[in-house]
Amino acid sequence: MSKVAVLGYGTIGSGVVEVLSMNAERIRKNAGQNVRLKYVLDVKDCTGTPAEKYIVHDIEEILKDDEVDIVVETMGGVRFAYPFVKQCLMAGKSVATSNKELVEKHGPELIRIAKEKGVDFLFEASCGGGIPVIRALVTAYTADEIEEISGILNGTTNYILTKMLNEGAAYEEVLAQAQEMGIAEQNPEADVEGFDPCRKIAILASVVYGKNVNFEDIYTEGITKISEKDIAYVKKLGASIKLIASFRHVGDRYYAMVSPFVVGPENPLYSVNDAYNAIFIHGNAVGDTMLYGSGAGMMQTASAVVADVVAIAAGRGETRLIDWSEDKLKVDGIESDRRSFLVRVSDDKVAEAKEIFCASEIVRVDGLEGEAGLVTGVMTEDEFEKRAVQTGIISRLRMR
Amino acid sequence: MSKVAVLGYGTIGSGVVEVLSMNAERIRKNAGQNVRLKYVLDVKDCTGTPAEKYIVHDIEEILKDDEVDIVVETMGGVRFAYPFVKQCLMAGKSVATSNKELVEKHGPELIRIAKEKGVDFLFEASCGGGIPVIRALVTAYTADEIEEISGILNGTTNYILTKMLNEGAAYEEVLAQAQEMGIAEQNPEADVEGFDPCRKIAILASVVYGKNVNFEDIYTEGITKISEKDIAYVKKLGASIKLIASFRHVGDRYYAMVSPFVVGPENPLYSVNDAYNAIFIHGNAVGDTMLYGSGAGMMQTASAVVADVVAIAAGRGETRLIDWSEDKLKVDGIESDRRSFLVRVSDDKVAEAKEIFCASEIVRVDGLEGEAGLVTGVMTEDEFEKRAVQTGIISRLRMR
Repeated sequence: MSKVAVLGYGTIGSGVVEVLSMNAERIRKNAGQNVRLKYVLDVKDCTGTPAEKYIVHDIEEILKDDEVDIVVETMGGVRFAYPFVKQCLMAGKSVATSNKELVEKHGPELIRIAKEKGVDFLFEASCGGGIPVIRALVTAYTADEIEEISGILNGTTNYILTKMLNEGAAYEEVLAQAQEMGIAEQNPEADVEGFDPCRKIAILASVVYGKNVNFEDIYTEGITKISEKDIAYVKKLGASIKLIASFRHVGDRYYAMVSPFVVGPENPLYSVNDAYNAIFIHGNAVGDTMLYGSGAGMMQTASAVVADVVAIAAGRGETRLIDWSEDKLKVDGIESDRRSFLVRVSDDKVAEAKEIFCASEIVRVDGLEGEAGLVTGVMTEDEFEKRAVQTGIISRLRMR
Repeated sequence: MSKVAVLGYGTIGSGVVEVLSMNAERIRKNAGQNVRLKYVLDVKDCTGTPAEKYIVHDIEEILKDDEVDIVVETMGGVRFAYPFVKQCLMAGKSVATSNKELVEKHGPELIRIAKEKGVDFLFEASCGGGIPVIRALVTAYTADEIEEISGILNGTTNYILTKMLNEGAAYEEVLAQAQEMGIAEQNPEADVEGFDPCRKIAILASVVYGKNVNFEDIYTEGITKISEKDIAYVKKLGASIKLIASFRHVGDRYYAMVSPFVVGPENPLYSVNDAYNAIFIHGNAVGDTMLYGSGAGMMQTASAVVADVVAIAAGRGETRLIDWSEDKLKVDGIESDRRSFLVRVSDDKVAEAKEIFCASEIVRVDGLEGEAGLVTGVMTEDEFEKRAVQTGIISRLRMR
């Protein structure tokens, strides 16, 4: 029998407690042994909850109990999570976590300690919620050179963009709604500025390419500057708009960015709507593939955490399959990336802009007078910036 | 170092040989050792191909060579594949196969032999080509009760249906085109009658539920009776049409069927077009998820076969995770399945049919005079059949 301690009884922690109980039989079968909750660490007493009889307030109780072989970390942040997880690994306990900040900041060190101690450090739930993307990258896409990973990795911003597109609503209005519904946080910066998907793509790329991708090295643009007017042009093009975190490997160079993109219906990410996430993976043999599912949500994320618990309890030793060294992976800037852009210009500049941007298409939207949208020719980011300054544009969106 | 023998140098076999060579370094890294081709078994000499210097014509040469620890079977059929694979397993060699007929007919026996011999029998490529669906089901969806697996599991029929919908073309015409392009076989029966996706869903369900699903027990309806007129109504509804192989677990009962379905834009399978495949998986914790990619193609399928080779060479022992016994899983009939239907009736019957079918919507298509489409209320298959006979209808499609 395997005994589990859950650190942090918030949304995901309570989901883990629920899944362990609800699906106990299926878990037992797949783990090859019973998996039982023994402790829940929280500052609160959690009276009246299913955690009540498991509550402890001191990590030492868990550390010193040799019966506990698996620790689930769902506290979030790094202030407590980092020392606690490290102590657990040092004490010979395996850890499964949903904490992307912890994994992004301390992943290579924690993986190294786990390997040294012969235990597991798994983090499926840190990226893409219930979507088994890390396990797939580590165990399934092993015969391919992965040339691109591009994901819709943040449910909050995808919900906001979907609403803006479908209802023509303004960003501030949809954000306020999302906050009311609990889909967006009261301080939404990590989501809407793109930092959350940036951390996640850094984790995924590190796992695939074996070296540490620093999320601060990745060009990151959020969705806060997108107006309902911009989106009206996207809609007119029959396209959609998605915040995409992208990592590409070309020759011996690596390119990464997080930015909103206009995506057409031929792109598999086009119809990933609302709070759903999806990760597009292109391999040199397998071609275009995509994994799709809920990127957040209590039970969905808990499902991924408990799948890690099952892997640990089954003794599959998956951590040894994860090659993520502390060496830094150099990520190139986006200056030489080539693409089309959707730009808005005032009417008096349409003719000039059409020429300067080698525009293939001029788009006009009913009700938006005095301006037009242009789909530019394919050019580098650098070239685009120069021409945009020269012409004077109202706004621009990148196209895929 | 691991040495590989490939049985059958057809499309997939030649893809495997190419991937082993093209991605040798990535394979070495993920397998933890070099993986080298040693033999290719084929009746032909394969002169002038990359297989030429590896060719043998007698399985005995492979069986008696102790250096060969991994055998790839890409011959197809069971006449030779079954005895050869069985002999290889008995000789203590692991096997990776792309052969769905072999897996569907002899899976439980070959898995049992592999386990007895302490070797692997893996078959990722038998379902969904390059999509890592079997590995995901066996290693990732382990904390969930899987309530539904529904897939577009056949690229040929998805290509035909996509073309019919987009171009308004007739079935026979699109089939002939597809045959010319090599997307459909000269004898297309296994695809267009739904037998191929039926075998695949039987394999997936067997892997998930641990017992043997007999594909003959699954209600199977192909796409041969779908006319361009039927599809005109689907298009008018803003929907799409997909051949879906579906397996559901409700309480202690199991339901399975293969049939064309009308799917709306809110369904993640809606935008899976052309020869792409996708598998929708619903778990009681993880909710709705989907895996998407090429369901066929030389390199895509080879990628999945070689991923199995990597798992074997890395000593991950994945076969012990596969619980697929020889006991039969009882599959219920579809009589009590509840859904809406899209029916076509002649004009003189619209009023009567509207009442009898509790139709929520009447659809008329320009150019189709003298008839109308009706979206029925939700009812069981049985109820629908009775009412359809009573009224007299032109055709019907199931809706999801």
